[in-house]
Amino acid sequence: MIGVVAKLKIQDGKQAEFEQVAKDLMAKVKANEPGCLTYQLYKTKGSETDYIFMEQYASADALKSHGQTEYFKAAGPKLGAVLGGAPEIQYYDIVE
Amino acid sequence: MIGVVAKLKIQDGKQAEFEQVAKDLMAKVKANEPGCLTYQLYKTKGSETDYIFMEQYASADALKSHGQTEYFKAAGPKLGAVLGGAPEIQYYDIVE
Repeated sequence: MIGVVAKLKIQDGKQAEFEQVAKDLMAKVKANEPGCLTYQLYKTKGSETDYIFMEQYASADALKSHGQTEYFKAAGPKLGAVLGGAPEIQYYDIVE
Repeated sequence: MIGVVAKLKIQDGKQAEFEQVAKDLMAKVKANEPGCLTYQLYKTKGSETDYIFMEQYASADALKSHGQTEYFKAAGPKLGAVLGGAPEIQYYDIVE
């Protein structure tokens, strides 16, 4: 299993637009990617602009195919339009 | 739901000791806390000493009772003995 934490800073005032894009994306991931075990948006407590996607994938292949889906690619420009800076994406290997 | 990412830097050479304490703790959390939906240790890709616990709780109460369990309290000193610095714990509110 692979863990991912993607940190996103959103332009203030664009939160609602961002959250809608993110919710649509989460729904599509959950409907189409059995190898994606967790794909959840969270807002940082105490912040109005900082979010994370908390993600868990059953395998490296599941992570790779996630990034190649049409809907993930389509979300890119919509997310890009509301980001307040480059996302910080960290990858993790499971310990079990 | 509440998300938590707890970042832990471990003293080099103490990884095996840490991972054993963490695995015991994960097993007890999974066996005793239905309100804890995710409690997973991950190692940061490319690092030998950096880990995170990726955590998801069904409610604030579930998070609170987690911290009050005997086994969590008992793990504290064991974890403290292998930490290479203070943990960085960030809390998140779910967006759904």
